Amino acid sequence: MQDKVVVAVDAMGGDNAPVEIVKGAVDAVNKSNLIKIKLVGIADVVEEELKKYTYDKSSIEVINATEVIATEEPPVNAIRKKKDSSIVVAMNLVKNGEADAFVSAGSTGAVLVGGQLIIGRVKGVERAPLAPLLPTKKGVSLLIDCGANVDARPSHLVQFARMGSIYMENVMGVKNPRVAIVNNGAEEEKGNALVKATFPLLKNCTDINFIGSIEAREIPSGYADVIVCEAFVGNVILKLYEGVGMTLVAMIKEGLMGSLRSKIGALLVKPALKNTLKSFQTEEHGGAPMLGLNGLVVKSHGSSKAIEITNSIMQCITFKEQQINEKIKENLINED
Amino acid sequence: MQDKVVVAVDAMGGDNAPVEIVKGAVDAVNKSNLIKIKLVGIADVVEEELKKYTYDKSSIEVINATEVIATEEPPVNAIRKKKDSSIVVAMNLVKNGEADAFVSAGSTGAVLVGGQLIIGRVKGVERAPLAPLLPTKKGVSLLIDCGANVDARPSHLVQFARMGSIYMENVMGVKNPRVAIVNNGAEEEKGNALVKATFPLLKNCTDINFIGSIEAREIPSGYADVIVCEAFVGNVILKLYEGVGMTLVAMIKEGLMGSLRSKIGALLVKPALKNTLKSFQTEEHGGAPMLGLNGLVVKSHGSSKAIEITNSIMQCITFKEQQINEKIKENLINED
Repeated sequence: MQDKVVVAVDAMGGDNAPVEIVKGAVDAVNKSNLIKIKLVGIADVVEEELKKYTYDKSSIEVINATEVIATEEPPVNAIRKKKDSSIVVAMNLVKNGEADAFVSAGSTGAVLVGGQLIIGRVKGVERAPLAPLLPTKKGVSLLIDCGANVDARPSHLVQFARMGSIYMENVMGVKNPRVAIVNNGAEEEKGNALVKATFPLLKNCTDINFIGSIEAREIPSGYADVIVCEAFVGNVILKLYEGVGMTLVAMIKEGLMGSLRSKIGALLVKPALKNTLKSFQTEEHGGAPMLGLNGLVVKSHGSSKAIEITNSIMQCITFKEQQINEKIKENLINED
Repeated sequence: MQDKVVVAVDAMGGDNAPVEIVKGAVDAVNKSNLIKIKLVGIADVVEEELKKYTYDKSSIEVINATEVIATEEPPVNAIRKKKDSSIVVAMNLVKNGEADAFVSAGSTGAVLVGGQLIIGRVKGVERAPLAPLLPTKKGVSLLIDCGANVDARPSHLVQFARMGSIYMENVMGVKNPRVAIVNNGAEEEKGNALVKATFPLLKNCTDINFIGSIEAREIPSGYADVIVCEAFVGNVILKLYEGVGMTLVAMIKEGLMGSLRSKIGALLVKPALKNTLKSFQTEEHGGAPMLGLNGLVVKSHGSSKAIEITNSIMQCITFKEQQINEKIKENLINED
């Protein structure tokens, strides 16, 4: 038991809860015996779902939580008032050392607030960023920060750069990851006040491979592995990525229905087109880690199906094995 | 002559200058006798190009300018030092009332700097924003500001909203255009410091149809006609639009070459696909106006061909006819 990674899973969070979440948890323990899951939610409902599957009963424990936080609830209020919600109960498991990590497809706001208020930050970490993986032409890049705390300071961005670099190197296996800061031009004199103040600090970081500015146009081409920005800009990038992709796909589909010729062609290209478009969807690439907390929090997309939940759970194994939090602590202490 | 719109055109600016620029100018005067063009650039070169075409000689005048500003030159320096460049000479024509408008596919930085330093802002306008049209599922939206001046103040954003609204209503013919501010969430309490300070000011504007926040995901769907943001964020949106589009198209093309089946299909869908993708390219929708100046400046995409130059020139007719600058002046005076 001592080597297992204990993951608390929010059985009630996301558009497809509890069905897909429970399935994802079962698939994870059937895939790896390194995983032990604490499935948190309304016990009756969760147990009813679990009955459908065959798995090693000792690998999944159901923890009762009678309340559910909805996506549209104001997060700070929800975390404070709903003490018996799946998110709060699961986060307390991480806080008390009864779980190593927490996976949720529920309210992003509540997960972010709970992470800071309940689990708490690693000593020395000023802000805990949310860092989704963006699909690119070459694979994926880590976009850090897309969290709820906007108007970051230069020192925050420097910590984001370091934590993101550790994550990409150790969890995603990218050697010497290229770190870039989002800017409105490639030249060093470009930028708003925040970027101008941060740029020289990043240049002086000896522990990261800082390659300078990245213009938004270059993000999808995979020009950098770690893309550093303040959360407001990160939110715009993440959501525009999804928006342009979705709209373009819808327009292409509509366009192909315009003539008989293209309709026939559409039938032939469908499988290839589907594969390409799938690889470019942000939710296809596992959950977004919230870094710098005393434990790992993985935010899975709200529309997650079982496969994404399983992937998010598997991510936690590498995170623990690679001792990411220990590396973040060391790194921040060494440099400060 | 008194009713003609006089447009100074930068014959030397852009990737395809002077060939496509000169062709675009000729096409414009052949299309509308309301246009008179002052084609600014190295006279020998421009005249040599003009020889290729048939047109009413009185409608195009060549103005000699011996210098050229390259895209990579630092803009402030270039505008100050290259007094005989096509951009500086053409902008002086607008300043001195010898032209109503200026169209350039040259250095965006130099055009923005020159607009402010040479032509100057309409009295009461605090900042002159650059406002490109973004393709959406429903048509186009005006993204304001994508200029060079970042870290705007709330009062700037309010002026952008008003000027953008006037432009969309009068030049693009959108009745009662919906104005939204880019935000990291749909709820009113969301936002960074700038957005939070600007939101109530926009809500109080009686002269615009303010519909609240817009998340980046909704931009491509055409949820708003005028999209207000600070220039750093605007730059990220504009460039990411181009980047995601370009990468997705490249990946689709590559994906279709993967099997014989999809290769055959690709041949059949090619024309339909091409049309759809074309309608989603930012450079397809005419030049970006720089608003709030004593005269109109239209920045055409660097890769502009003749057709885009012609479109940018035609835009100037409506701008003058609709007395946009007079409306901006009135509007700002009435409200302040």
